Amino acid sequence: MKVGGIPYRSIFTEGEGTDVQVIDQTLLPHRFRIRRLTSAADAAYAISGMVVRGAPLIGATAAYGVALAMRADPSNASLAASLSRLMATRPTAVNLRWALENSGAMLRSLPPPRRARAAYRFADSLCEDDVRINRSIGDIGLDIFREIHRAAYGGARAPGRPLNVLTHCNAGWLATVDWGTATAPMYRAHDEGLDLHVWVRETRPRLQGAGLTAWELGQHGVPHTLVSDSASGHLLSRGKVDVVIVGTDRTAASGDVANKVGTYPLALAARDNGVPFYVAVPSPSIDWKTEDGADIPIEERDADEVTLVRGVDEAGVERTIRITPERTRAANYAFDVTPRRLVTGLVTERGVCSADGHALRRMFGREAGSG
Amino acid sequence: MKVGGIPYRSIFTEGEGTDVQVIDQTLLPHRFRIRRLTSAADAAYAISGMVVRGAPLIGATAAYGVALAMRADPSNASLAASLSRLMATRPTAVNLRWALENSGAMLRSLPPPRRARAAYRFADSLCEDDVRINRSIGDIGLDIFREIHRAAYGGARAPGRPLNVLTHCNAGWLATVDWGTATAPMYRAHDEGLDLHVWVRETRPRLQGAGLTAWELGQHGVPHTLVSDSASGHLLSRGKVDVVIVGTDRTAASGDVANKVGTYPLALAARDNGVPFYVAVPSPSIDWKTEDGADIPIEERDADEVTLVRGVDEAGVERTIRITPERTRAANYAFDVTPRRLVTGLVTERGVCSADGHALRRMFGREAGSG
Repeated sequence: MKVGGIPYRSIFTEGEGTDVQVIDQTLLPHRFRIRRLTSAADAAYAISGMVVRGAPLIGATAAYGVALAMRADPSNASLAASLSRLMATRPTAVNLRWALENSGAMLRSLPPPRRARAAYRFADSLCEDDVRINRSIGDIGLDIFREIHRAAYGGARAPGRPLNVLTHCNAGWLATVDWGTATAPMYRAHDEGLDLHVWVRETRPRLQGAGLTAWELGQHGVPHTLVSDSASGHLLSRGKVDVVIVGTDRTAASGDVANKVGTYPLALAARDNGVPFYVAVPSPSIDWKTEDGADIPIEERDADEVTLVRGVDEAGVERTIRITPERTRAANYAFDVTPRRLVTGLVTERGVCSADGHALRRMFGREAGSG
Repeated sequence: MKVGGIPYRSIFTEGEGTDVQVIDQTLLPHRFRIRRLTSAADAAYAISGMVVRGAPLIGATAAYGVALAMRADPSNASLAASLSRLMATRPTAVNLRWALENSGAMLRSLPPPRRARAAYRFADSLCEDDVRINRSIGDIGLDIFREIHRAAYGGARAPGRPLNVLTHCNAGWLATVDWGTATAPMYRAHDEGLDLHVWVRETRPRLQGAGLTAWELGQHGVPHTLVSDSASGHLLSRGKVDVVIVGTDRTAASGDVANKVGTYPLALAARDNGVPFYVAVPSPSIDWKTEDGADIPIEERDADEVTLVRGVDEAGVERTIRITPERTRAANYAFDVTPRRLVTGLVTERGVCSADGHALRRMFGREAGSG
């Protein structure tokens, strides 16, 4: 999508296609800076330090991390070391595991001299797949939006009656390679002229909504309003939201959804008010090996993310401030699991699927026994 | 309660009992400063600027505001002006209306020369009532805590198995004159040696949990852990919370509860996990004139409270930072309404009451027809 009128992806290669560049998301929304990754260690740090974040982008960065390692040293030892180093960065995103397992299996079958080029090709195609998947989620989500808007306001173009969409965290193009998952339908809808307004939850503690989603939507010109995470119950109960759509870091084979902490109470509030709650699920985010959402590991992050807040002061100087008394202890659970019973539908690249293990397996040709 | 070992109230008089002093809560937790109120305008500013906040303390401050006006000028015009100025400060807290209506009615019946003394006496006794009410809520809540702890862990003293209480915002002694409402049972339980741990929700946007509740509990030595507002769904679903207790800015006669925004989704998550959800309700917070929670006005506050965050930098310097892109629009709904069906019980100074209009009226001798 565009930044200051120029099209960008969140990760891309330059030079002979071997120089890996990412947008440094720890600096947004206050500074826009491209950062070069030169090694698997760089890529691992970019993931664990959240220079890049979002399940699809984490997967893509990990794949390029392996490619950087293979370029420097294509030996078996180097391959094993880079895979294990990258795997240890973030526990919840399933795309990470998917990318590393598949890249690893493919590379082990090749003689070392052919590995670097194959690893780059794998990462490049993973990125192209991501863009195609998200674009498709965008088209399918757009149909859902149109239908809800029509049902609510009786016409595709009801002047002054925008479709009110609410989202959590950043499942935007910054979380993917392009388009985003939950935002893809918003960008498509906006581009198609559907009157749209997005409620953006700030998403404490890291404020990905306030910092990234608000920035993305603003750059693309999509009308939006920021609210505290706590405000959505009120918005939903007063009829100010027509549809909720969020992303996922990992969706279990049963349809249980792990996503940024706060998603589960949001789904409860949507259900309590009869507002549809959709999850944008690119298929690489489906964990076919995990049936029950309760088995998804929930990452605990540094308490500093809760007690310290980053921003800019009046003079535009970046500052980190403490919002608590000096020695206050904090806990930082990064994700929660939304039970499938609260999910209206999973918006995948193949179509909308009810949050149900059988339906999901059927959609992706993975019925029991089909392997 | 104590600050640095010294007992304080959140509002108190000095001199000949006519000098009104409050703790400036806009500076906490980074600075502890007492501020003198010298006029009704001062008191009004203290309320609207949130130097003082919390429904009971707002009521007490308003009562002293009237007293300060009567001391300066006990005329009918001065009385009317001070009442209307103070009434306009905050729309949601019912204690404000209660204090001003009762003080006003009483003072109008007196000749001007007797008004100042009577107004102070009214404010003083309102404060004493508040302390007595909260102490009683503390005793009743303590019984509830003990019973839940016994049921969960089979003994009043189960070493290493604390009762995990979760609370939202600051319904602490800083929100009242002393003890607090939701915190009164915590202080009583801690003082009685019940093993207790409190999950404190930070409470965006103004961070009263991170700034005030964490500070209060820390000063009193009650073990606690701060979490983002969004974390409570996860905590509840993983069995990390035994009981939720919150305060209220206004409870409708039917038992519907208006409280700091985020309370309603919290109640939904408690219900979804079978965790009891209590509301500490001093009787002055009951709005007998409003039956339906949907009729309670919900204050919308400045968007700056969402986009700007206050804290201290590494050098201890107080700073206000912006967490959003430069022109991001925000909305700031300060309260929400929790439907009575989600409330396990209302903890009043007279006992625990089911969140039900009939039961509530019966408890306070206000059955239909009794006036």
